Amino acid sequence: MEKSDQPMRAAVLTDPEEFEIEERERPEPDADEVLVKIRNVGICGSDVHYYEHGRIGDFVVENPLVLGHESAGEIVETGANVNGFEAGDRVTLEPGVPCRRCSHCKRGDYHLCPDVTFMATPPHDGAFSEYVAWPTDYTYKLPENISTRAGALCEPLSVGIHACRRGNVGTGDTVLITGAGPIGLLAMEAARAAGATDVIITDIVQSKLEFAKERGADHAVNVAETDLETAINEYTDESGADVVIEASGAEPSVKSTLDGVRRGGNIVFVGLASESEIPLDVVDIINNELDVYGSFRYKNTYSTAVKLLADGVVDVEGIIDFERGLDSIDEAFERSMKPDVIKGMISVDR
Amino acid sequence: MEKSDQPMRAAVLTDPEEFEIEERERPEPDADEVLVKIRNVGICGSDVHYYEHGRIGDFVVENPLVLGHESAGEIVETGANVNGFEAGDRVTLEPGVPCRRCSHCKRGDYHLCPDVTFMATPPHDGAFSEYVAWPTDYTYKLPENISTRAGALCEPLSVGIHACRRGNVGTGDTVLITGAGPIGLLAMEAARAAGATDVIITDIVQSKLEFAKERGADHAVNVAETDLETAINEYTDESGADVVIEASGAEPSVKSTLDGVRRGGNIVFVGLASESEIPLDVVDIINNELDVYGSFRYKNTYSTAVKLLADGVVDVEGIIDFERGLDSIDEAFERSMKPDVIKGMISVDR
Amino acid sequence: MEKSDQPMRAAVLTDPEEFEIEERERPEPDADEVLVKIRNVGICGSDVHYYEHGRIGDFVVENPLVLGHESAGEIVETGANVNGFEAGDRVTLEPGVPCRRCSHCKRGDYHLCPDVTFMATPPHDGAFSEYVAWPTDYTYKLPENISTRAGALCEPLSVGIHACRRGNVGTGDTVLITGAGPIGLLAMEAARAAGATDVIITDIVQSKLEFAKERGADHAVNVAETDLETAINEYTDESGADVVIEASGAEPSVKSTLDGVRRGGNIVFVGLASESEIPLDVVDIINNELDVYGSFRYKNTYSTAVKLLADGVVDVEGIIDFERGLDSIDEAFERSMKPDVIKGMISVDR
Amino acid sequence: MEKSDQPMRAAVLTDPEEFEIEERERPEPDADEVLVKIRNVGICGSDVHYYEHGRIGDFVVENPLVLGHESAGEIVETGANVNGFEAGDRVTLEPGVPCRRCSHCKRGDYHLCPDVTFMATPPHDGAFSEYVAWPTDYTYKLPENISTRAGALCEPLSVGIHACRRGNVGTGDTVLITGAGPIGLLAMEAARAAGATDVIITDIVQSKLEFAKERGADHAVNVAETDLETAINEYTDESGADVVIEASGAEPSVKSTLDGVRRGGNIVFVGLASESEIPLDVVDIINNELDVYGSFRYKNTYSTAVKLLADGVVDVEGIIDFERGLDSIDEAFERSMKPDVIKGMISVDR
Repeated sequence: MEKSDQPMRAAVLTDPEEFEIEERERPEPDADEVLVKIRNVGICGSDVHYYEHGRIGDFVVENPLVLGHESAGEIVETGANVNGFEAGDRVTLEPGVPCRRCSHCKRGDYHLCPDVTFMATPPHDGAFSEYVAWPTDYTYKLPENISTRAGALCEPLSVGIHACRRGNVGTGDTVLITGAGPIGLLAMEAARAAGATDVIITDIVQSKLEFAKERGADHAVNVAETDLETAINEYTDESGADVVIEASGAEPSVKSTLDGVRRGGNIVFVGLASESEIPLDVVDIINNELDVYGSFRYKNTYSTAVKLLADGVVDVEGIIDFERGLDSIDEAFERSMKPDVIKGMISVDR
Repeated sequence: MEKSDQPMRAAVLTDPEEFEIEERERPEPDADEVLVKIRNVGICGSDVHYYEHGRIGDFVVENPLVLGHESAGEIVETGANVNGFEAGDRVTLEPGVPCRRCSHCKRGDYHLCPDVTFMATPPHDGAFSEYVAWPTDYTYKLPENISTRAGALCEPLSVGIHACRRGNVGTGDTVLITGAGPIGLLAMEAARAAGATDVIITDIVQSKLEFAKERGADHAVNVAETDLETAINEYTDESGADVVIEASGAEPSVKSTLDGVRRGGNIVFVGLASESEIPLDVVDIINNELDVYGSFRYKNTYSTAVKLLADGVVDVEGIIDFERGLDSIDEAFERSMKPDVIKGMISVDR
Repeated sequence: MEKSDQPMRAAVLTDPEEFEIEERERPEPDADEVLVKIRNVGICGSDVHYYEHGRIGDFVVENPLVLGHESAGEIVETGANVNGFEAGDRVTLEPGVPCRRCSHCKRGDYHLCPDVTFMATPPHDGAFSEYVAWPTDYTYKLPENISTRAGALCEPLSVGIHACRRGNVGTGDTVLITGAGPIGLLAMEAARAAGATDVIITDIVQSKLEFAKERGADHAVNVAETDLETAINEYTDESGADVVIEASGAEPSVKSTLDGVRRGGNIVFVGLASESEIPLDVVDIINNELDVYGSFRYKNTYSTAVKLLADGVVDVEGIIDFERGLDSIDEAFERSMKPDVIKGMISVDR
Repeated sequence: MEKSDQPMRAAVLTDPEEFEIEERERPEPDADEVLVKIRNVGICGSDVHYYEHGRIGDFVVENPLVLGHESAGEIVETGANVNGFEAGDRVTLEPGVPCRRCSHCKRGDYHLCPDVTFMATPPHDGAFSEYVAWPTDYTYKLPENISTRAGALCEPLSVGIHACRRGNVGTGDTVLITGAGPIGLLAMEAARAAGATDVIITDIVQSKLEFAKERGADHAVNVAETDLETAINEYTDESGADVVIEASGAEPSVKSTLDGVRRGGNIVFVGLASESEIPLDVVDIINNELDVYGSFRYKNTYSTAVKLLADGVVDVEGIIDFERGLDSIDEAFERSMKPDVIKGMISVDR
């Protein structure tokens, strides 16, 4: 995109654990884009990981990078071909824009497009800045009863919705969620919305489990203390959960999914593991004829997320622990590294 | 089943519009059966149809018949091989018991079994009686917080759940339901439970529409006065409903489903039409690539219905207009023939 | 697209039943396009319909139009951004190019995109011309063992593949196909490729039925003489076909699909009906719990079609009745109007 | 079942590597059963495993056991309620008979029934005997053009069909099969029947690979010598296989499935691993959004297997290496333990 001569501020990760607030040129929207004044950007675990380590797997921050991909704001300008959006519209931005032409895109799996431009994934800048220009097909209007704080969290909510769709969660299902962080908690919201009647959640941090129970988990199991299989058998009358959503990435949790699921049930892996090779009981997968689904980001979830929020069926703002302005982004990231924090929120113009 | 020498009372349809309360022998449960003292039996439109006309299509009441297939009660005796049930358990009965051996049964489509024994479908007696012996695999325990009144209505709720499954209703969907009778209203409950965020319902009786709105419909359209397509376009921003559930059986409603659905959307026919041949726009089905699903009774829904009720996610008792004892069954049926009545309930020992 | 100053010939429908061979400017490929020298273009029933009537439903030929959308040829030039294609590549062209941005496109249902550009559908020109510029994502290479004659017929083969996918045809299925024209015959090829073991085909033209039997139909039923339900019951041991593909568009055939399908089976409507409102037995759809699918064009089928042809699993060239040069297009269309003709082929530079 | 006073011979595993030919009473068919004179029984890897080790995992041969579950023969007697079968019918027997009443059975997943009676799985006797009484709903007639040798192999063919269904193999798919033993080879037959156009097979025994190529594999990769990922990339133009069917149970093969599959593709585990815990790259499963399916035995495959065989679409007899009479069963089992043997066949009355 072309840059206008008007400046804007952006928080740029220049070195590990070091943001600089830079003045940059404000982008100009292309013909099919809108220019969005960013209001809120959630801090994701992946942002914190880049902040601490300067990389995630093969993605290395080699040049200064703007982080942030959970964003919402207000349209201030529209490109030449834009219809259906106008200045003043409050919107949330789906952070991945695919090529629209490859076999994945044509199949509807645009999230698997190898040429996707994804915010805050090197070399693409993210949303911790005052303005972002974004194509309208990945921009979604927020109705009046959804704040931009909630709108920004359509992103992690989308991760939860997609995980539930992958696992085919339906009415009357018993769902086990391993990990009570933001993904686990929002997967729980999505599972409830999809009709799950029994939700069991696990973690090793007691405060997170208590929070999960307050938010409606039927059972919360501290797997540092309690044997999961025993607990599941008690809660499910020996049958196991219909669907297990693994949202922690921790090796013992990943392995335990096989103990928690019923015969013929579904397991969804969504929490990115730190160890990539994890021993799994393949004979168990065969003999119990399990479906094991990887769940990567999301597709076609933003409209759903907006509707669920507008309807009051799910809650996302309740997981926000604290809110800071763009100038306090370093403090916000430091605080986000603590194990009991669920979600930090940057309010850009605070 | 063998009959014991203990008597019981049953309401027997001997002629059109004529019930007799007969004394019959109490059935004895087979080895895999339980004997259930019936508490509540809902009056279904099909019961009323047999009462008025003595037949439904090819099913003709040639001999005295006990009607009623929406039943719940309490176990008083268990067969020799029964495990997991005991006297005193409150239960609801799934009224169709299949052969368990044909290709439909083996495929899991047991509701399509041609040799099904279905309560109150000639020549099989139904549940308007004091006792019924029933196989345990089609008997479901009610937890304490579900009344037998509600338990009996697991049957029409199952019809709604199955219709939503057939139509693949999911989170964020807009669902149009044509017909605000018991099936339409309980399909609405099931659609909400499955995550539908927008429900539009139609009828031609204004009081039913008002009742539907009280029960949570986003929009209620009186199609005697308002053009459906115009209304849908307004409510869905010109796109149409993701899923349409036809629950009225009325020819104009059946035809209108094609006007209400979005391109690529799903239509479910569940309301039995009085005219069986209805002109449908086949070019529209092709050009909009619609999925049109027949929905017949239900399968694998009772456990779900019980969980949804136990969780308080759905309400069924709210649709009951009145309750009568077995002795007043004639009056109850007369009243059920009125167009504004949704659901009458027989409480056997009232 | 820009036009070069080099001329080319195109067959333009100027009035009903009147083609003119015009000299037009040769198109220049855009950055993501290739310029294709067209070799072969099949004559489709829709081309013939425009030729005879000047319209199909709401699509009216108001300005001179180039027909033809079943095309294959050879790349002679590539746009600036094109990778993976080069001059000399023999290719087939998928005739519909969607917007790539609407909700249908993002869902993978690009064939339902309301803004699709489809060859030979007013106001978009088709392929009865010497050159066409086309985007690479809807262009597919032909391996050496597939002729451009066969390549052009990837289009009707795609219609057959898509219909089989819609109907979920699988191994061991019995498939009834109503109508032995090009779509019926190529749906038969696709059904065989998908594992159907028993194919029953119907028509009212005996020569077409005999041709279908030569091409591998297990049973061919002349429904002008034989009762379909009786025949199906005989051939399927009273159970009915797993899948019925309606490929004729004739009202009696559309109605008969309900007689031919098994309980719980699938019906696919793909043959465009001349009468759009056709009386269908809705009670039958419900009581037999049928799935009725509209099948509109195709999506993600061209790669499959090319692979099936390359593997020799299907045959398409066998349905070609005759081949003419572009100069004889009027004669070719006249001949295509005869009821016993299956497929005419224009070989542009013949 | 009751025993008649007529004797029959059966091969009984009394100790590891020791069969005794015993004289036993011939079973009498129950009301819903037929009595089958067994003609052919294939030797499965699981039979050989019991023979060598006296156990498979938790299933321990504690009492003398009749092995064999791949069987076909001729009906000699029918139970009182049997319809549709008569003496003289040649049949194949599906070896697992479920309870028909549990939630798995009602869902159509009868193969996951915890109370299944499965031939040759302790304590249930199998088919290496002269007669077996079997319920008709798990008995399938063989048309004239299918031998009982082929009929017996409906069992391993069913394993292949089910694996392909689990993996959703469809027309035009590229399928990678790891392991060229009987399951791999028959999965290849099933994949071809389902429309796979490209089949790549792996093994470490060169003679098996050559045999697989003779039987139609497009590519055969000796993974003892060649890097699988490199080979797959070459054969699939860098994209990977649509579906991978793991049929070896070998740890390196199980791990390699992740290298062979395309982004968004499906993996099916069907070969029982000797090591049950195998390290798998969970991050890869997530980032490539894979579906990993366990495939356990089969359901609703026997009718399909019979139809595919009758149609000549698949071949099973070609994998038989040798055939012996019941008296030579020890020799047959010894020979089946050699790594290059694919399938041994017992012809009971040879």
